[in-house]
Amino acid sequence: MSAPKKVVLAYSGGLDTSIILKWLQTEYGCEVVTFTADLGQGEELEPARKKAELLGIKPENIFIEDVREEFVRDFVFPMFRANAQYEGLYLLGTSIARPLISKRLIEIAEATGADAVAHGATGKGNDQVRFELSAYALNPEIKVIAPWREWDLTSRTKLLAFAEENQIPIAKDKRGEAPFSVDANLLHTSSEGKVLEDPAVQAPDYVYQRTVHPEDAPDTPEYIEIAFEKGDPVAINGEAMSPATLLTALNEYGGKHGIGRLDLVEGRFVGMKSRGIYETPGGTILLEAHRGIESITMDRGAMHLKDQLMPQYAELIYNGFWFSPEREMLQAAIDRSQEHVTGTVRVKLYKGLASTVGRWSDHSLYSEAHVTFEEDAGAYDQKDAAGFIKLNALRLRLLATRNRRVAK
Amino acid sequence: MSAPKKVVLAYSGGLDTSIILKWLQTEYGCEVVTFTADLGQGEELEPARKKAELLGIKPENIFIEDVREEFVRDFVFPMFRANAQYEGLYLLGTSIARPLISKRLIEIAEATGADAVAHGATGKGNDQVRFELSAYALNPEIKVIAPWREWDLTSRTKLLAFAEENQIPIAKDKRGEAPFSVDANLLHTSSEGKVLEDPAVQAPDYVYQRTVHPEDAPDTPEYIEIAFEKGDPVAINGEAMSPATLLTALNEYGGKHGIGRLDLVEGRFVGMKSRGIYETPGGTILLEAHRGIESITMDRGAMHLKDQLMPQYAELIYNGFWFSPEREMLQAAIDRSQEHVTGTVRVKLYKGLASTVGRWSDHSLYSEAHVTFEEDAGAYDQKDAAGFIKLNALRLRLLATRNRRVAK
Amino acid sequence: MSAPKKVVLAYSGGLDTSIILKWLQTEYGCEVVTFTADLGQGEELEPARKKAELLGIKPENIFIEDVREEFVRDFVFPMFRANAQYEGLYLLGTSIARPLISKRLIEIAEATGADAVAHGATGKGNDQVRFELSAYALNPEIKVIAPWREWDLTSRTKLLAFAEENQIPIAKDKRGEAPFSVDANLLHTSSEGKVLEDPAVQAPDYVYQRTVHPEDAPDTPEYIEIAFEKGDPVAINGEAMSPATLLTALNEYGGKHGIGRLDLVEGRFVGMKSRGIYETPGGTILLEAHRGIESITMDRGAMHLKDQLMPQYAELIYNGFWFSPEREMLQAAIDRSQEHVTGTVRVKLYKGLASTVGRWSDHSLYSEAHVTFEEDAGAYDQKDAAGFIKLNALRLRLLATRNRRVAK
Amino acid sequence: MSAPKKVVLAYSGGLDTSIILKWLQTEYGCEVVTFTADLGQGEELEPARKKAELLGIKPENIFIEDVREEFVRDFVFPMFRANAQYEGLYLLGTSIARPLISKRLIEIAEATGADAVAHGATGKGNDQVRFELSAYALNPEIKVIAPWREWDLTSRTKLLAFAEENQIPIAKDKRGEAPFSVDANLLHTSSEGKVLEDPAVQAPDYVYQRTVHPEDAPDTPEYIEIAFEKGDPVAINGEAMSPATLLTALNEYGGKHGIGRLDLVEGRFVGMKSRGIYETPGGTILLEAHRGIESITMDRGAMHLKDQLMPQYAELIYNGFWFSPEREMLQAAIDRSQEHVTGTVRVKLYKGLASTVGRWSDHSLYSEAHVTFEEDAGAYDQKDAAGFIKLNALRLRLLATRNRRVAK
Repeated sequence: MSAPKKVVLAYSGGLDTSIILKWLQTEYGCEVVTFTADLGQGEELEPARKKAELLGIKPENIFIEDVREEFVRDFVFPMFRANAQYEGLYLLGTSIARPLISKRLIEIAEATGADAVAHGATGKGNDQVRFELSAYALNPEIKVIAPWREWDLTSRTKLLAFAEENQIPIAKDKRGEAPFSVDANLLHTSSEGKVLEDPAVQAPDYVYQRTVHPEDAPDTPEYIEIAFEKGDPVAINGEAMSPATLLTALNEYGGKHGIGRLDLVEGRFVGMKSRGIYETPGGTILLEAHRGIESITMDRGAMHLKDQLMPQYAELIYNGFWFSPEREMLQAAIDRSQEHVTGTVRVKLYKGLASTVGRWSDHSLYSEAHVTFEEDAGAYDQKDAAGFIKLNALRLRLLATRNRRVAK
Repeated sequence: MSAPKKVVLAYSGGLDTSIILKWLQTEYGCEVVTFTADLGQGEELEPARKKAELLGIKPENIFIEDVREEFVRDFVFPMFRANAQYEGLYLLGTSIARPLISKRLIEIAEATGADAVAHGATGKGNDQVRFELSAYALNPEIKVIAPWREWDLTSRTKLLAFAEENQIPIAKDKRGEAPFSVDANLLHTSSEGKVLEDPAVQAPDYVYQRTVHPEDAPDTPEYIEIAFEKGDPVAINGEAMSPATLLTALNEYGGKHGIGRLDLVEGRFVGMKSRGIYETPGGTILLEAHRGIESITMDRGAMHLKDQLMPQYAELIYNGFWFSPEREMLQAAIDRSQEHVTGTVRVKLYKGLASTVGRWSDHSLYSEAHVTFEEDAGAYDQKDAAGFIKLNALRLRLLATRNRRVAK
Repeated sequence: MSAPKKVVLAYSGGLDTSIILKWLQTEYGCEVVTFTADLGQGEELEPARKKAELLGIKPENIFIEDVREEFVRDFVFPMFRANAQYEGLYLLGTSIARPLISKRLIEIAEATGADAVAHGATGKGNDQVRFELSAYALNPEIKVIAPWREWDLTSRTKLLAFAEENQIPIAKDKRGEAPFSVDANLLHTSSEGKVLEDPAVQAPDYVYQRTVHPEDAPDTPEYIEIAFEKGDPVAINGEAMSPATLLTALNEYGGKHGIGRLDLVEGRFVGMKSRGIYETPGGTILLEAHRGIESITMDRGAMHLKDQLMPQYAELIYNGFWFSPEREMLQAAIDRSQEHVTGTVRVKLYKGLASTVGRWSDHSLYSEAHVTFEEDAGAYDQKDAAGFIKLNALRLRLLATRNRRVAK
Repeated sequence: MSAPKKVVLAYSGGLDTSIILKWLQTEYGCEVVTFTADLGQGEELEPARKKAELLGIKPENIFIEDVREEFVRDFVFPMFRANAQYEGLYLLGTSIARPLISKRLIEIAEATGADAVAHGATGKGNDQVRFELSAYALNPEIKVIAPWREWDLTSRTKLLAFAEENQIPIAKDKRGEAPFSVDANLLHTSSEGKVLEDPAVQAPDYVYQRTVHPEDAPDTPEYIEIAFEKGDPVAINGEAMSPATLLTALNEYGGKHGIGRLDLVEGRFVGMKSRGIYETPGGTILLEAHRGIESITMDRGAMHLKDQLMPQYAELIYNGFWFSPEREMLQAAIDRSQEHVTGTVRVKLYKGLASTVGRWSDHSLYSEAHVTFEEDAGAYDQKDAAGFIKLNALRLRLLATRNRRVAK
């Protein structure tokens, strides 16, 4: 790889990415473009602009954007159509944000004539893979710089020394080491590392940042009604909302009721297991409600196929293959299944638990006429079941006959 | 089908199966053998013996058995190795009991020289399919009688009239119609029908029989430690227990904390959707804990394959194909994956929620040395990630290059 | 089911469906509408019109249509995009024709105000299922009449007697019993039954109707070039052709070279195994060529996913679920994968074998620069492979370490 | 990685691995142990011993073994139980040999106290991955040396110069460059590279080494009968044979009749596509025959599940994950399905084509009584089909009703 001339950096404005910014300038002597996105992580962005300017970035090279609506509409909601859960439990809050960031990095690179992108993910995690696979899939010629895999700033001490040498301001609380590492966006907050590294030990209370402890949640349940159209939520309690607004509202409901905490040991794509504490308050409610509306509007054959495809779909997103033809194939199948996933679900929120307690829809497939214990007026002829069972059993009977024969 | 001469009836001792018993005698003039099983449904069995005798069944034709250990050991636990959930949520409590009942019906038929078996499931549900597929798979020559599909006792009034004509005692509370229908065993209680038939309407509190309302559960969390060996739970809080004893204990923990309630609309094998209220207190804790112990002891490749196979496995059990070669193939694969699923999980129980908060094992695959944010002493070379990503990206880059080329 | 008033019959003009026609008139006293389709079975259709008129069908109730282009374009080609083979081998020639016939039956029923459809498939086979599932999926209120399951004309003698009583002309060669039963359309000819019922015995030569014996095929290979666009063949040897014209041409090539014979024992949806002799000359060439063009234009991830979905897709078509949401979901995924399956394949035809010997495309993903044994000018860095392997191996190494540890 | 002290080298005795042998000695100054295996590649092994001695290897460090029986019994036959084909066509002849070689390398390393293994695969191919994943899975501490990824002998000229400097004998025909690269074992011969690099161009005749041209094959078909037990072939024409003997015999039949040629472009695990010419004469016959015997002895449910799992199974073997828990899980499922795959298949061999023409078995599931077009004496009640179809259709009818309702 020849040396990069102009690099677009995924820049948070924090200490680590500021060090990277400076390191790119000094190591490669290249022009740096910064991209700072509001994905709903709950931090102000303007300080990032100030800091970038302070580090010598030209104003036209500073990109600060609110991408929350795009994030929820084009990434989070399509993923929730699949009821995606990695290893049965993880709602993929970090994984789903990475492709969007890469997409903007590549677009900004093309707009500014940059030949490289850079990110602050380490060489042990999944995020490097997600950033880079997305970047390469969108621009096969792009150079990718991952300073954590390259430099020799391998300890906190060396990092701080580099920062001081280079006049990078160090916030007081960054002098010491954080007791764990955090990633946040509108869908979730994940915490991992250090105090969380022993999976036998319960995560300390102070790790949780976005949800109250279920024990501290209200003693009275709250009920909300979520309306869906074609698989996506569109309103809460009758109030129509944009995607990001709706997810923000669900986060508030979930956070208040202590919903969406997950303590997980997961298998990383790079091969080791890691332990994470995830808080996905709104997403957890959304998954429950989405399954609820699917349960009355989606055909059994479609649902079972979708359930069967889900683990691979979730794995693709976890591993960073959002921009891959196979994810797009699965998405086409999933989206096809959501055409009639329209209706309303009533969810009970209480002390950490979101439970569907009712659902209704003009698109419902539920037929009380068929299922009723009462007289069904001929909707269903019970005698049909005899033939149904007889022919489903035929191969099993032929098998049993054969097995008895050869056992003799 | 020629007329049956001797029939083994799955007999609960209740009004409905007593009517069936009498109907078999009068309709077919055949000898009836009764089989009453203790699957943990929480009813005494001796009254069933008395009632059978009263209805003229010879003592040697009355079979009453406690099959709880076999049920949990050979059916429930193997199924939980798969983390099986039908349509993403249902723990298959009714489905998994049916094959055991059929197996004993067929064995008793062979022991007593009966040429038929009979059950009390209706023609609208899944249970008829489960009973009969299992029966045919185990004895391809057996006759199966499903009175509900055959007789003309199509209303409550007719049933009661038949009972009275035939001197079948009717308990006072059976005069009126039950507001819903119940099935119970050691794994779960299911309720459906009548007051539950409108899926938009929240299930009334009195439906729940086995779990307290989360609102009424203790205000203080309780922690338990569940030990596993090769995928099956073997001890709670250090105390070794037999399978049925252990599940009984988990049910008590779960019931006390309001854990394991599910309000579900599901797609029946016979084609319509139905709404059920399930209570699976111990099973819900077990699923959580099993996933917890798998998370540190099972390889990622094995787990992802298992997750991918699970929906089909669950569907097979739901549809009644326990005794089918494809279920056995999947079981072989699943069991192969459980060899090292040995260790202990700590679970927090609180107000309806069971949450893994810690897990440890001599068989752990978790390597703090690899995952640590600290210096890892060479366990992992971050530079390897560059090549890993490069080659994973290669096909995506070739694809992007092609797509750009042809777009021109 | 109340009695039908007006029935659309899938009518071939042959003896059996003529008997059905008459039986519908006499049994139900209903008006009969006939639908006779040219699916490429190689029979003239006008005699069917004459015969229908003779049997008293009103001219406006006689529908005779050439549906070959629709058949190939909307059914055969979409299916071949999936490389569908049932039980690894069968190209689904009969299965794929049934939904089209049902679709037209339903459309004609709606156009003529008929309340029922009827077909001539027996109660043992798959075709009844395919006809009826399609019909119900397209019109949930339709009545379906399957005379072979209803009437008492259970022997050849009774059928002929009925025909004679009802003045149905009987062709001389229909007096005796055919030595086997045949179904044909533009995609294939299938033969089964009677002389073919012992699967141990080689099918006699006279069974084959559409392909020469490989031994009698030309002694010199012939090469053809098939051009594809988005997964569908569009030209042979540079000559653009409509779908049906192209398949007809491929059938001629295949038939001449003895290509596409298959002697198969397959598992029917109704539960028993049956033996069929299939001739699919053009389809066999098409499958080979389609795989050939996919091999250079389709990404590995997409292809592997498609290969994995194929068996279920084929099973759905075989079982009659063409018009089901899950088939449509899979089709959406498959079609998504074909966007760049454009290019040309050179196929060698010789003595029963169709072999791809060359393929090229503007959409090719094959990169000689990367794969070459020669100097690759930096297209590929072999050192990347070390990291790639190291991280793919990591979980296996952690596993081996664990297994060694616990084995001690 | 610290420097290796003692290395077990997969040594063919050819020029390339001789250069590697010398390079290991000079580069690392380490002791070299050679392992030369007879996998049926058709070369004598004793010259390899001589050459190793000449290059200074101690006699006790020279391991020469005939592993043909193990290869076929423990690797080839288990794989054929799955009907494994990568990307629909490739019989995995190279892929399946690598894990066996790695297994012996690791065993010899443990026996001789070596701390490293080395192989002669390049950095562009799949074989490096297969060798190394297997090695790491069997010994997580082993060092792996892949000289082609490390050294600077990047051209033919440099290689020959190194050989000359180091007194490595160079056979005359190795002075020039081979027009393509070959790998062979008892299952197949693969050829790739150079003259084969343009996938549009037909492979020249001289590439084929193991099969006659179909045009040159006998003009008369030959028929053979292959007997199977539990999924594995055990006899040909009534003569019992050991695994390797049987595969050798099948290779002779296949080679003589021009059977088993494949010209394929495939997606490599490392990301690029490559073109290979494969000759798998015996394996091609075996696949056909195995499907033939399965067709009458294996239940439909089992077969369809197996077909569905196959692509992932094949991908795992292709990618080098033979020694992975997920391959073992799949193998457990597959092996479970083969219990009754016992019987005999008659195969016609003619001009490149192997076709099943008959099959019979005491374990047959085929029931002429059920399938017959003749009177079936009550084996099958056609009326059962009505209920079977009705209930299979129910969900589709509810769906159509819903879709019509909401379309209004």
